Formats: sequence, C-alpha cells, structure tokens
Amino acid sequence: MNKMMMIKQYLTARQTLIDKSLDSLLPESQGTFSDHLSAMRYSLLLGGKRLRPILCLAAAEAIVDDPEIIADMLPTACALECIHTYSLIHDDLPAMDNDDLRRGKPTNHKIYGEAAAILAGDSLLTYAFELLTGQGNRLSPEKKLHITNLIARASGPEGMAGGQSLDIANENREYPFELLKTIHRSKTGALIKCSVEVGAIGADASPEQVRRLEEYGIQIGLAFQIVDDLLDATSTTEILGKTAGSDQKNGKATYPSYFGVDKTRQIALETIEAAKSSLSSFDQKADPLRELADYIASRTH
Amino acid sequence: MNKMMMIKQYLTARQTLIDKSLDSLLPESQGTFSDHLSAMRYSLLLGGKRLRPILCLAAAEAIVDDPEIIADMLPTACALECIHTYSLIHDDLPAMDNDDLRRGKPTNHKIYGEAAAILAGDSLLTYAFELLTGQGNRLSPEKKLHITNLIARASGPEGMAGGQSLDIANENREYPFELLKTIHRSKTGALIKCSVEVGAIGADASPEQVRRLEEYGIQIGLAFQIVDDLLDATSTTEILGKTAGSDQKNGKATYPSYFGVDKTRQIALETIEAAKSSLSSFDQKADPLRELADYIASRTH
Repeated sequence: MNKMMMIKQYLTARQTLIDKSLDSLLPESQGTFSDHLSAMRYSLLLGGKRLRPILCLAAAEAIVDDPEIIADMLPTACALECIHTYSLIHDDLPAMDNDDLRRGKPTNHKIYGEAAAILAGDSLLTYAFELLTGQGNRLSPEKKLHITNLIARASGPEGMAGGQSLDIANENREYPFELLKTIHRSKTGALIKCSVEVGAIGADASPEQVRRLEEYGIQIGLAFQIVDDLLDATSTTEILGKTAGSDQKNGKATYPSYFGVDKTRQIALETIEAAKSSLSSFDQKADPLRELADYIASRTH
Repeated sequence: MNKMMMIKQYLTARQTLIDKSLDSLLPESQGTFSDHLSAMRYSLLLGGKRLRPILCLAAAEAIVDDPEIIADMLPTACALECIHTYSLIHDDLPAMDNDDLRRGKPTNHKIYGEAAAILAGDSLLTYAFELLTGQGNRLSPEKKLHITNLIARASGPEGMAGGQSLDIANENREYPFELLKTIHRSKTGALIKCSVEVGAIGADASPEQVRRLEEYGIQIGLAFQIVDDLLDATSTTEILGKTAGSDQKNGKATYPSYFGVDKTRQIALETIEAAKSSLSSFDQKADPLRELADYIASRTH
C-alpha cells in the first residue's frame, strides 16, 4: 500500500472515531432543548476533515506508545472540533461572510435561522469547555487546566475570534503583507498550533518536544491557510463544498493576491517542508504527523 | 445607618471592585487587536449591577471569615460577568431581541456593527474560560476544574444559551406556564444559581451548605426574573436604561401576562422569602446574601 493510501485509511479511521464520539456526546434528544441540540448537531456532524482533533491525537501518539492515550485525549479532541464548528457557524452568518454553503450543505442559519444559528455556535463553544473540564479520563487536574487554558487563549480575543475580527474589519482594504500573516496566524493558525500542542502536553511531552511540535503546528497552520487561499481562488464550489471565489467576492487579501498562484504553491510546499523538518528528532511514532503535513499540501477541498 | 443604606454601600463597594478588576484584566490596548478589545470593553465596562459576581463573592463570604477569599474568587466572579455580558450582547442583536439600548447606552452592535458585536460576545465567553483556568490564586486545580465545569453547564445548551434559544423559538406563541418556568430557570436562573454555588464551593462549603445555597440561588434567580418581567411591564425606558415594554413588543410570555401585575408582585415577595428561609442555618456572615435577596425584590432597574 502506498503512502497516500495509508494516510487516507488513517484519516478515514480517525474521522469515524471523531464522528462517533461527537454523535454520542451530543445525542439526539426529544427533550426540552431538542431544537437547539439539533441545530448544534447539524453543523457538528456535517462531516468535515476533523483536522484539529486528528492533529491532537497524532501529536499525543508521537510522544507515547500507549493505546489508551487516544481515550484520554478524545474529550480534548472533540472539544477542539466543537470550537472549530462554532467558528464556522458564526463566520457564515449574514453579518460576517454571508455564506449559504458549507461542506456541500446549506449553512446553519439557512436551515435554522440567524438567531438559532448564533445560539448553536454559542452553545458549541460553551460545551467545548464543559468537555475539557469533565471527568472520565486519566489526565490530571493540573494538565486539564493547562490544556483548557491554552485552548481558551488560542480561541479568544488574541486568537481565533480576534483574528476573525481583524479579517472582517479589513475587508475591501489594501494592507501590508505583515497584517495578512497576523490574520492567518490568529484566525486559523492559533487553534491548529494549539491542537498539536495540547496533544503533546496530554501525553507528557518534554518542554523540548512541545517546542518542536509547536513549531510543526505553526507551519502546518500556515500551510493549511495558504492552501485554503489557493483553493478558494482556483477550485470550484462543487469540489470545495463551500462557495469558491468568496475571498475575492468579500474583498479579502490572500496569498495569491500578493504572490500569484504559482509562487503561492511554492510557498505552501516550502512551509510543509519546514513543518516536517521540525519533526526530525522524532521517531516513526511521528509518521502520521509527517503524512498529515503532506496531506495538507495536497488536499483538494 | 438603616439596612437599605448599608446594602447600597455594600453594593457600590463591590461594584467598584468588580469594575476595577475587569478594567485591569482587559486593559485598553494600542496593539493589533485594539478594535476588538474596545468592543469587548465597551459592553463589559458599561456599568451594570454586577449581580452574578457579587453573589459569588457573598456566597464565599457566607462560608469563611477570611479576607483573602475575595482575591481567590475574583477571577471566577469576573468570568461570570464576562459570560453575562456576552449573553447581553448576543441577545440584543437584530436577529434576536433587536434592542438599541442597554444600560442607557447604545447596544454593542449599534456602535461596532453586527459582525464585531457577535465576535466581541464570542471573545468575552472564551475569555471567561481563560480566566477560570488561569493561575494566581489559592484555589486547587481540582476546585478550579469543578467550578469551570459547573459554569460551562450553567451557560451552555441546557443552561443559559439553551434557555435563550427556547425563549426566541416561542415568541408570539401561547404556551403552558410550565414552559415559562423552564425558560426562566435555564435562561437566567441557571447562571445566577451557579454564581452562588461556585462561590460556596470556592470557599470549601460542606455539601449541605452548598445544597442550601443552591436553593437560595434558585429562588433569587427566579425572583430576579419575575421582577425583570414586572419592570419591563410597568417601568419606563428612562429608568430601566433598556427598552421598556420589549417583552410585549416581542410577544413574550411573562409572569404578569399569566398572573397580572399585583399577583406577580406577591409571587416575587414569596420567592424572596423562600430564598431567605434557605439561609436559616447560616450565621451573620450570610447577611449580605439576605440583604441581596431584599434588594432584588426592591430594585427599580
């Protein structure tokens, strides 16, 4: 079996694990809050690459050879996906990117209306912190607190939400490339880097190992966003499952708008190589992280 | 000095403490995220009764006679106010209650626009969890985790956000009084009860003490909402600092719409008495909680 087939099998198995865990954490309900829970489940279970939880689990596995580490880190992994999903629901709102399509399906507010969509996002964000601070795994209280704090920082005013705010505020404006980097680093980079970091911390990585995995996380976070910019500029709505060309429509600066498509492709590949170099001192337990880096460069949606 | 003057002095001192703490936690910034932080600060520092943080501190003080307990519980108290403020910003949005006025000033989206207001709310919610899991006080990691988990539950899909979702979904509909109680209990009751509960837990209350304080919290949470309904029906926009009569405008069921104004007043007073009865086994350290109950019954805005 070649490498690409192996990573695809690996990703499919992990996506199934995450999907099942999310489904059982937030089951369908006939109770008082059933409509609200349906709106949360709709976006949470719409598929998706599950990149953040998979990175979290793969980082933990790069540190220890212990099958139970997956069960220990699953609540953290699922919390990361809840936070990512909340951010998509809010980003798609009419007041933000006003998108009708996500993962090939109508966006949350198109199905449930704006008010319910805002609240579904709010509850997914809040529920992530319920998960992170819950019982039922071997992580020590100190470690859980540390992980929760890092995730809050990566998602908050100087992380993901702050980055989205900068992005929106600078639509239809020309600005220096430095600001684009800041937007990417905060809006998408912070939570991707954090996913790797908390996986490592959960598995008792040494400070040096955490530092190297953080560097890996920074580079793949950047590569992910560069490829996102490229796909938005060059792919189709059908393949992407979300509206193609929306960056240009919303007057957003992107890597292709600074460097053109060919140079951007080259930067993406260099960034992936930098990510893999950060893993040079890790053994074969880090192979899934290496292959995830290649996968990010080659993804088509 | 009479009782009413004493509670007013007490509230003013505590409001000042909370205001100063919030101001120093989220200081003005000239940095990259300054606009986003300004939007967060605008609503957070608009004044307000600071009921939830004050209840949290007063519950801790009802348990232990230790001046340092206030410093220990301040991050928790401030986190509760961040969560309350985020909920007000989102509730006021055009897609929700569409209110222009809050605490006598324009609502967040009226100043910063809808996108920035949604994100300011998101960041305040996220920042609350950063505060709750941060360092710098004597609470043990176990206790911090427990407190954070309780606050997430009280704010999430079966707490505050779920309650707001039920409220919005049932506008302009007739429904049984049972459902109104569920909406009140989740939308406003859960976080008020939780504020008292986590204050008690932070001060090492016994399970029996926690149970009694929870009961107190449930009753004052209910009384608070009943008085809110009354004020909306009988007061003026000038006195309230938010739009009076908005419940009727938005087709919302309220206590007065079921029972009329006089009977509602009586229910509010009975609920306050029930709250105070739950404190019968506490000594004079619980006097601020007793007076807060009376204050909730007599408030005019």
